[in-house]
Amino acid sequence: MYIIGERINGMFKDVAKAIREKNKRIIQELALKQIEKGADALDVNLGTAVEDPLSAMEWLVKTIGEVTEITLAIDTTKLAVMEKGLQCCKSKPIINSTSADEEKLNTLIPLAKKYNAGLIGLTMSRKGIPSDANSRLELAIHILNRWQEEGLPVEDLYIDAVILPVNVAQAQCPEVLETIHQVKMLSQPPPKTILGLSNVSQGTKYRSLINRTYLVMALAFGLEAAILDPFDEELRQAMRTAEVLLNKTVYCDSYLK
Amino acid sequence: MYIIGERINGMFKDVAKAIREKNKRIIQELALKQIEKGADALDVNLGTAVEDPLSAMEWLVKTIGEVTEITLAIDTTKLAVMEKGLQCCKSKPIINSTSADEEKLNTLIPLAKKYNAGLIGLTMSRKGIPSDANSRLELAIHILNRWQEEGLPVEDLYIDAVILPVNVAQAQCPEVLETIHQVKMLSQPPPKTILGLSNVSQGTKYRSLINRTYLVMALAFGLEAAILDPFDEELRQAMRTAEVLLNKTVYCDSYLK
Repeated sequence: MYIIGERINGMFKDVAKAIREKNKRIIQELALKQIEKGADALDVNLGTAVEDPLSAMEWLVKTIGEVTEITLAIDTTKLAVMEKGLQCCKSKPIINSTSADEEKLNTLIPLAKKYNAGLIGLTMSRKGIPSDANSRLELAIHILNRWQEEGLPVEDLYIDAVILPVNVAQAQCPEVLETIHQVKMLSQPPPKTILGLSNVSQGTKYRSLINRTYLVMALAFGLEAAILDPFDEELRQAMRTAEVLLNKTVYCDSYLK
Repeated sequence: MYIIGERINGMFKDVAKAIREKNKRIIQELALKQIEKGADALDVNLGTAVEDPLSAMEWLVKTIGEVTEITLAIDTTKLAVMEKGLQCCKSKPIINSTSADEEKLNTLIPLAKKYNAGLIGLTMSRKGIPSDANSRLELAIHILNRWQEEGLPVEDLYIDAVILPVNVAQAQCPEVLETIHQVKMLSQPPPKTILGLSNVSQGTKYRSLINRTYLVMALAFGLEAAILDPFDEELRQAMRTAEVLLNKTVYCDSYLK
């Protein structure tokens, strides 16, 4: 599975403080440690309480770029901040994210083209997040069509079926699994599927257990990528075991090592 | 999920010794403890090293029957021993198991009818265990047809897609998941699906991790019953969490309790 490390996010207090104080060491350590734990890419999110997000994003992306050329997923809703992040990336970046709304697609798809970036497309619109798989799939199809109209490669598109916390929208948890399964049948080759995993357990008591249980089920339904916490060792073990049991990596007695 | 406790099996040394020494206390404690841990039924297997299996099965089933009227799954390949076990059950039993071979079906289906028993049907035949889902499904269809020809209720039939150890037949692990999924589409209502879970991890280093990861995936594909170890607390937690995430039991903060 393709792992995007979630830890460089201003929603975490250590990261918010490091951004505020321009503490490169904290950020660079978080970057390198996530990579050491198996991250294939790093999410980069300023959080909410940043005074000058444009320069903060530039500082953050360049700070990471000093120690690694790994793919960065620029995670912001502000267009100018997104472009600044993309400009500063050392290698092919990912745009995190667009909805299925036209004004989003009309700005972010050209941006993806300009910067040769991947794009995460959320199956939601201004009307909200649909409650069932079929309606999520319709939004996925719309995003896929708009992406392909621009001649962009389908393997650079990541459909995110938007998992909500189980304590808020329990009935949607199986619908998201079904969406993942259906997205794989949309085109040949199909777009990739991705989840912002930790969201499923927001506000619950057994966060790690819920995260890893849902990840195992999503992998069985064909999930290829997730934004997650690379420091969660039990999550890593569950993921590796699922990959073995799905015959995606070869079993050996020491497969966890 | 319907849990059949696996611990009363002569393959375990404590059980073999208790059968040999006619030690009721050991057997009765194992029965009650498995029920306390959530077992809905108990598998009853003499193991291999029993001198007089007919009287041993009678003793074993009656010993359990002294402390509980729970469903017993009589687990033996010997026809006379099977019938003796069924005769001694206090409530509706389960026959564990038949293959798809005619000589098995011709004896075990009438036995199920005679004793109003459930039947576990393995998707295997004298030719062996097929390597792919479609061939397993063909055997499931054959067992289902023979069961229905006798006018027996489909909800009493448990199709077991026969999971083999991941270190022996890794490529079959996803095929078994696919079989479980397909069996649910065979009839309306469909037969139940069941797994002898612990087999997937035989001979591996991380048995509990492999068992619970596979169970979570199988549940996502529609599995309804499993023969498993009710004493494995992490397995129980994973199962409960999967049931919540599949929206089969209602989420509450203390759902693990």
